[in-house]
Formats: sequence, structure tokens, C-alpha cells
Amino acid sequence: MDPSYPAPVTSRESSERDKDVFAVHEGGKLTMSSRWPIASIDDLALTYTPGVAKVCLAIAAEPSLARRYTWVPRVVAVVTDGTAVLGLGDLGPVASLPVMEGKVCLFTELAGLSAVPIVLDTTDVDEIVETVVRIAPSFGGINLEDISAPRCFEIERQLKQRLSIPVMHDDQHGTAIVVLAALRNAARVTGRDLGDLRAVVVGAGAAGIACARIMLGAGIGDIAVADRQGILHSGRTDLNAAKAEIAQSTNRAGYTGNFLDALVGADVLLGLSGGQILEPAIASMAPNALVFSLANPIPEVDPVMATRYAAVVATGRSDLPNQINNVLAFPGVFKGAFDAHATAITEGMKLAAAGALADVVGDDVRPDYVIPNPLDPHVVPAVSEAVAAAARAEGVTAD
Amino acid sequence: MDPSYPAPVTSRESSERDKDVFAVHEGGKLTMSSRWPIASIDDLALTYTPGVAKVCLAIAAEPSLARRYTWVPRVVAVVTDGTAVLGLGDLGPVASLPVMEGKVCLFTELAGLSAVPIVLDTTDVDEIVETVVRIAPSFGGINLEDISAPRCFEIERQLKQRLSIPVMHDDQHGTAIVVLAALRNAARVTGRDLGDLRAVVVGAGAAGIACARIMLGAGIGDIAVADRQGILHSGRTDLNAAKAEIAQSTNRAGYTGNFLDALVGADVLLGLSGGQILEPAIASMAPNALVFSLANPIPEVDPVMATRYAAVVATGRSDLPNQINNVLAFPGVFKGAFDAHATAITEGMKLAAAGALADVVGDDVRPDYVIPNPLDPHVVPAVSEAVAAAARAEGVTAD
Repeated sequence: MDPSYPAPVTSRESSERDKDVFAVHEGGKLTMSSRWPIASIDDLALTYTPGVAKVCLAIAAEPSLARRYTWVPRVVAVVTDGTAVLGLGDLGPVASLPVMEGKVCLFTELAGLSAVPIVLDTTDVDEIVETVVRIAPSFGGINLEDISAPRCFEIERQLKQRLSIPVMHDDQHGTAIVVLAALRNAARVTGRDLGDLRAVVVGAGAAGIACARIMLGAGIGDIAVADRQGILHSGRTDLNAAKAEIAQSTNRAGYTGNFLDALVGADVLLGLSGGQILEPAIASMAPNALVFSLANPIPEVDPVMATRYAAVVATGRSDLPNQINNVLAFPGVFKGAFDAHATAITEGMKLAAAGALADVVGDDVRPDYVIPNPLDPHVVPAVSEAVAAAARAEGVTAD
Repeated sequence: MDPSYPAPVTSRESSERDKDVFAVHEGGKLTMSSRWPIASIDDLALTYTPGVAKVCLAIAAEPSLARRYTWVPRVVAVVTDGTAVLGLGDLGPVASLPVMEGKVCLFTELAGLSAVPIVLDTTDVDEIVETVVRIAPSFGGINLEDISAPRCFEIERQLKQRLSIPVMHDDQHGTAIVVLAALRNAARVTGRDLGDLRAVVVGAGAAGIACARIMLGAGIGDIAVADRQGILHSGRTDLNAAKAEIAQSTNRAGYTGNFLDALVGADVLLGLSGGQILEPAIASMAPNALVFSLANPIPEVDPVMATRYAAVVATGRSDLPNQINNVLAFPGVFKGAFDAHATAITEGMKLAAAGALADVVGDDVRPDYVIPNPLDPHVVPAVSEAVAAAARAEGVTAD
């Protein structure tokens, strides 16, 4: 079946486009620079030896001065092992670098932070954790990226436990924050209460699990989550720890079959699987359904078909309305965490981020505008203020 | 005994000076930036998704393309565990950060490279090696810094063995390169052949061992090296592996006592120990001796006293002539290695760096000008060209 929506090409011809992409990447996308020129012996004496010794001794005597006199409190490590690069799979650390450099560009350009791409030559969970713990004093926060599930859950869990700086796996929580913000506005524009929604999450990888968790945290109690083998339920013996845990707190109705069973009469379909979901399934949902089909570049649900049934349709694509893009979350989340000197990124901070992101749309909300545009300049200030306020209210700060 | 040379103060009053130093460090000294603005959805599509996927796939298919399409081939990791920060000792990773940021500033400002400070929360040799190996795909070269001896020798040895990118412990080889360049010119200005010099190295830490090695490599055959317990000789049972190795190839005369024994009639004193060496010792050296006293901020030998006996006096101080400063070596060495796509930094490349550095002084050589000023703009081009040429000549390149 050919989709009824345009293929993901741009206004310019595709091979021309490729040329532009490679031209932008020529020589890499990043540059480190000194905030001070070193043009004289005096400059050298102030920024390096002998002057620097005073600053080292001051920090050795009072380690909290590192926050004031080093770049650490404003720099994020963007860390990957390259096992789940975009939707492309396990490309390894070197081939993942252009994505990590791109993330760094977004941190610098959108949030005014610094960041460094760190690609790891290991896929072993314990080795990744140990490595990140050992380099952690170099950074103010750790953004995990493109690490395959279920390893990503354990890596993030251990790092959060061992480090007292913000740690966030963006493929999980960036996606979850933006999805929740869009769901909140989609519920509003269709006259529903968020807590009354009945949702089906198709896909139980990093993003699927994290979205289910944040939706539960936001009060959406009736959720069914499905992987390729069907709906997660506590009778299944093939579940990894993350799926087993989510199976305990979802699937209120006790489904044991295919996600299609749960979809009948459901208000929300959240596609994070990359498969294909056909028209009869969408037609079986509740009236005015909310269809979020986030596989990229090919959504699970043909969005043009979906609009014949659903009130709100969202995808991951920039050429269609309601683009769910992590760029809306991670720059503001880390900026807010840094502004508050947060020692962690908590569920409360993520919920605050989603709320603030939804509020940027505000009263302009429409079925085809439930989430801000990815580069809306109001997003980072709103998200970072909400995240910082939540961190302070919860007391998870170093002050 | 008060030294007869001025205390290391600057033209400005010292507390004012401290204020300037801390002001320069406020907020840290580094900024990462994107080489491309991200102001439109089109920018986003070129630098990040969906465009970036093409670049990732191209590198996955042909890994050598990473050299063209990522920042890796022009970025150095400046790595420390903070165990030997300047002359201050074991301050730990966090308090070492201002020095590492300063090194990064020098890489960016003097050589146009990028660099990243990586401070490690471990002092275990194997853990340091494993950590650096795992993060190595993120970088084009590894500059080890301020790691205590003898651990630094083993860490560098293992990393050179396991990585096919340039690795250099600057406290060893940066110092050694600059010392050799200065010795070469000092020999010339006093009408000696380098190979005929009889030298005494006082101090057998990172710099002492490395200087002895490069001097042997440059043809200075008659060297005695001493640590606090006396001259290194093969009968000593208290030597670490690095000292034992250097004991095998030095001390031709078979001294077994104090360095003062060897200093009688010697042409060169190289002080890298931080102790105090008094006038009778200097008076016992050969006429027109070369006295390099590099402890900072207090040289082992009072340089004013030394000039009464020696033809050439060099120190580590910027307020005295002939400053031996690593800044003269590491930016050009890494730039040259990167320019040649070198897979290692060899003894030949270091010797080439020393030769080029000496040649920058050229026919202007005088007893008080045996080494260029630290910010002489001719240094980095000369050193990097010589290093790149040596790498190509030896065939240690990835091409």
C-alpha cells in the first residue's frame, strides 16, 4: 500500500539536498574556543601558568568553587555507544558521531550551553557505566543518546544512582516529555480530561516504556503497552525487566492478545514501533481519537488516512503538522537543571517540562497545532524555567 | 639563603593580579560552538535529522570518512587524573580543571585545533587506560597531562600500544622537546657539538626520564641521571621500571653516589627536581657550562649566581631569559601529527620537533636567547611542518 501523503522529500531536488548535507558536515560541525585571547605573556600568565595555580588551589580547598571557576556547570556530555542510531540501528560509535555533533549544536544554539560528543568503544552495560562515572567530573550533566533497549534502562538507572549531576536518556525522556505535552493539548482541543484518556502504546523500546511511564505519572491510568509479541501483561514470561515493570502498572483491562484488541474504542494510539498500522485499526478507535504515529521517516499510520478518523494526528516529520521532536525538550531540560544547580532530573522536573511546553501553545491550540514548532524561541525559556522551579521546589539542588 | 634574583611577582601588585586571575576564570575558560547556525527547519534538517542519517550511513559503510565528516581529526582530549597538577601535587580531578581548560585554550589559540578537558575520577592505571581506550573514538589524539610518575609511563605505554591515534604525555615529551631544542642552541652558541656534551639530569620523574631519553636519542651519550637517593645505576634495587631502564643506558662513568660527584666537570646541569643546588656545585662544572634549572616558581639554581659560572642559563620562568615552556611544543606537535594523519607520535617526530624549534631561533642565537619566546608566531608552523614531515617519512600515517 502506497501512503497517501507525500514522500519525505524537500522542496529542493534530493541529490542536491544530499550535497548540501555533506557540505555542512565537511570538517565536522563543532569548534571549541577559548573565551580569552592568548596574545601576550600576560594573557598566558592569567589563563595558564603561573596564574592558574591559584585557581586550582582555591578549588582544592573548596570544591564547590569549581561551579564558579570552570566550564563544568554549563557543559553536557552527549554519550552514546552507537547501538541505536536514529532509526538506523547499531552503526557503532564512529558512525554515530554526526548525530552526536548535531545534538551538541542544538545544545549550543538553542540553549546557550556547551556540550561534548563522547562515543564509546564498548557496548557492555557495566563498562559504559564505569566509563561515564570516571569521566563525569569533566561535565555538568550526562545526556545519554541512541543506546539500544533494554540496555539503556539499566545504564541510566545505574548512572542516576551513582552520579549527583543531571543524567537523562533523551530517546526515553525527551520523547516522553514532548509526547505528554502534545497529548495534554490534544486532550484539551478535543474537550477531554487527560486522566480520562484510554491509550494504547505500540512499541516497548526506550521511547515506548518512557512514554508509558510519564503518562502514568501524569494521571493517564488506562494504558495498554504492546511489543511485537503483543500486549504486555503479567502472565508473560518473555519480558525484560523494564517491560515486566510496566506490565505491572498498565493493562488494567487484562488484555493478553494483539494491540488491535486494545485499540478498539481507545482514545489514543501512540506508535513508537516502526511497523505499519492499517485503516481498520484506526477506524476501530473512539470518535475524535488522537493518533500519534512517530516512526521516522515512515509513520506507522498513514497520516492522511488517519485524519479521516482522528481529531488530532501527530508524527515525527517536519513536513507535516504536529511534529513530535525531542529538540523541544532536551535543551530546556538541561538548561533548567543547570540553572537550578540540580543534582538529578526527576519525574517532577519532566512533568514540569511537559506542562510548560504545552503552555507555549496556550490558547492558540488547534487540532493541527498541539505542540510548538521545533525552533519556537519561547520553548527553551519556558521549559528551563519550569524545570528549574520544579528542581528547587523538590529540593534536588546542590545549594 | 635568599636568592639574588627577583621573586616571581609581576609588574602589577600581587593581590590585584589575583583578582585578574579569578576574573579570567569566572564561568570557565571554554565555549563549544556550532559551526552552523540553527535558525530554520532547513538548518535543522541539514545539521541534524533527517539529513544527518545520510552522513552516518556513509561513515558506517566507509569508516575513514569520519576523518572528513566529523570533528574528530582536529580534536585533542586533554586527559588527567589530577595526581601531579603543575608543581602542586595530587589535587584530584576537579581542582585540576583550570589547568586542563588552560591547555585547551592553548591548543585552540595557538594551533587552531579543538580540544576537550577530560578529568578522571580514578587513579588506577588499568582503569585510566580502559577509560581512555573506550572514549578514544571521540578524539583524534590524546594529550596526557599532570599524571604522577611512575604511573604516567605505564599509562602512556599501554595507550600507545592500544590506540592508533597520537598519544603524548606532555609533562614528559613536551618538556623533553623544548629542553633538547634549547640544548642544541646552547651547544651551538658555546661552540660545542651536541654529542660531546656530558650532562647531569637531577630529577627522575616524568620530565627527567623523558629528557634523558630524548637526549640519548639525539646522540648525547654521556648522561648521569639522579633521583633523591642519588645517581641511577644498575646496582640499585630501589628503582621503578622506568628508572631501571634509564639506568641501563646512562651513567657511563659508573657513579654510585650523589649527583654532585657527576657534576664535577660536567657541561650540562638539567634540574627537574625542585630541590636547591648551591654555588660550589655550579662552580665545579666545566667552563662555559649550560645550566637549565626548571623547577617553578623557584629554580633549583639561583640563576643570577649561575650566570657567574655558566655560559647559558635557562629556567621555567617567564620573567627571566631562556624560558623552557611546554607551550613551545604540544600545539605544534599535535597539529603536525593531525596534518599528516599520523597514527602515533614517534621518537623521530619528537626529535624533528626539537630541531625545528631550535631552528626558529636560527642565527639570532645568543647565550640569553637559545629558545624562542613562548608565543613566537613562527613556532607552531615550524614545529608542525617538521612533525608532519617526519611522520610521513616514517610512514606512521593512516593514508
